Amino acid sequence: MKVHYECFACAANQCQKIVEIGTNDLELRRRGVIEAAKLMAGINGDSIPAVFGSEVFLGVYRVIGNDDPFKEYKELSNRLAEKVVSDIEKEGPNLKTALKLAIIGNVIDFAVGYSPERIEEDVKAMLSEELYVDHSDELFERLGKAKTLLYLADNCGEIYFDRLFIKKLKEAFPYLKIYVAAKDGPIINDATVEDLRKACFGEFAGIISTGTRIVGVPLDRVSDEFREVFEKADVIIAKGQGNFETLSEVKDNRVFYLLKAKCRPIARELGVPQGSMVCLKG
Amino acid sequence: MKVHYECFACAANQCQKIVEIGTNDLELRRRGVIEAAKLMAGINGDSIPAVFGSEVFLGVYRVIGNDDPFKEYKELSNRLAEKVVSDIEKEGPNLKTALKLAIIGNVIDFAVGYSPERIEEDVKAMLSEELYVDHSDELFERLGKAKTLLYLADNCGEIYFDRLFIKKLKEAFPYLKIYVAAKDGPIINDATVEDLRKACFGEFAGIISTGTRIVGVPLDRVSDEFREVFEKADVIIAKGQGNFETLSEVKDNRVFYLLKAKCRPIARELGVPQGSMVCLKG
Repeated sequence: MKVHYECFACAANQCQKIVEIGTNDLELRRRGVIEAAKLMAGINGDSIPAVFGSEVFLGVYRVIGNDDPFKEYKELSNRLAEKVVSDIEKEGPNLKTALKLAIIGNVIDFAVGYSPERIEEDVKAMLSEELYVDHSDELFERLGKAKTLLYLADNCGEIYFDRLFIKKLKEAFPYLKIYVAAKDGPIINDATVEDLRKACFGEFAGIISTGTRIVGVPLDRVSDEFREVFEKADVIIAKGQGNFETLSEVKDNRVFYLLKAKCRPIARELGVPQGSMVCLKG
Repeated sequence: MKVHYECFACAANQCQKIVEIGTNDLELRRRGVIEAAKLMAGINGDSIPAVFGSEVFLGVYRVIGNDDPFKEYKELSNRLAEKVVSDIEKEGPNLKTALKLAIIGNVIDFAVGYSPERIEEDVKAMLSEELYVDHSDELFERLGKAKTLLYLADNCGEIYFDRLFIKKLKEAFPYLKIYVAAKDGPIINDATVEDLRKACFGEFAGIISTGTRIVGVPLDRVSDEFREVFEKADVIIAKGQGNFETLSEVKDNRVFYLLKAKCRPIARELGVPQGSMVCLKG
């Protein structure tokens, strides 16, 4: 997905959030956004929002001297989501419900003072919503014939919902080899391979780094190891907007996007109402 | 006032508003914000928000091919404000109330579907608030001894509140020569000399252009004619944030700022709580 007109102000607002969360020093914050302004000048009509955004954010991290401004936020998200998912798991969700939960996990901002009970209520409300585009039957059919699945994770917190879905996939398709990919290092609230390890994804999947901190899977930046797994995978599940933004240009029919169209550009690109949840084949 | 860290995202958000109001063509909107990104790279620690913002906005105007995106918004503001002020005037406000009304006129967004009745209610509520910094006694004392006053206008709509205040000033200080300055051409919702003419400011003041479309009074950009009036003025009343941003660096004790500190940077710079109304000598 190429940059839409809303992506510029959105990236600028994210930079503001980064400097606010990343340092209390007003002068450093100011230098951070001035750096952001310089880096953003590189946007052109072919820019992919997730990629240029990440480059700008990493530049801001350097200037404010904080390599992981969302560290505490991510830890809190993981802790809360783990608790919530553990409770949901006891209710024995089926495979399709677990897929919807994986999408819902992308939507919740775990760290805004929510109680686990409140999150569970919200999750239940969202579970009653239909997917606006639902290619899950085809996804499951394809997984029945597949040897390997590559699962592209997105955010912290959300990964505990992914873990539940992946467990259910493993039950339904016991011979499927599953790889779960995450970022090589911290970038906004994205999950890193370290987060996957801490969440013990290794018990039912291979953990793999994309080889980059750039959001999504920019195929010109990923490691050789990742590219090999990517190329050999029979099916790819891509969670969230960043993975969609970087892969949608490729038109790869192995990919199934699981996401909620949170912003107008993504909704416009997908041709769905803003806020829709989709399981969409690429 | 030099750029604060919040000014970057604020300018980016204003650019988004400009392209949205300025064109329905998504591709033009996109080119507009890409131009904004390029122009914003010029920000440095010495930039004055009103000045770099204006330069960026004018660049966006050029790219989207709309030299006055806020035209309708401004016309509606002027029409509504004229009606509201005409009703308020019947209640015979005194000079100090008229000064507060001039500050309040800066706060109201006339064009967001307000009814005149609703605006009048809001105005009355704000009139009951005290000024957080109130140097109005000194302002009036100085005007009693002054020969000329330069009044720097700010936004459309607001100018009808200014007109009422200026009428009251003229009653209180009949020998005072008053100049009212506005922008030479359209820039966001700022009043232009044309707006002043339409509002018949000529009946009790000299109308003068700053000689530039840049928000505020950037003294390195104004016309020679304006600079002459500026230099000769005994007292200067500067309305709103843009005039404050461009003049606050000068430390000119002829200047009285009349504004509401709507944003955090202005409030921080003035050392007042955000939202405060002030009549502050420079």
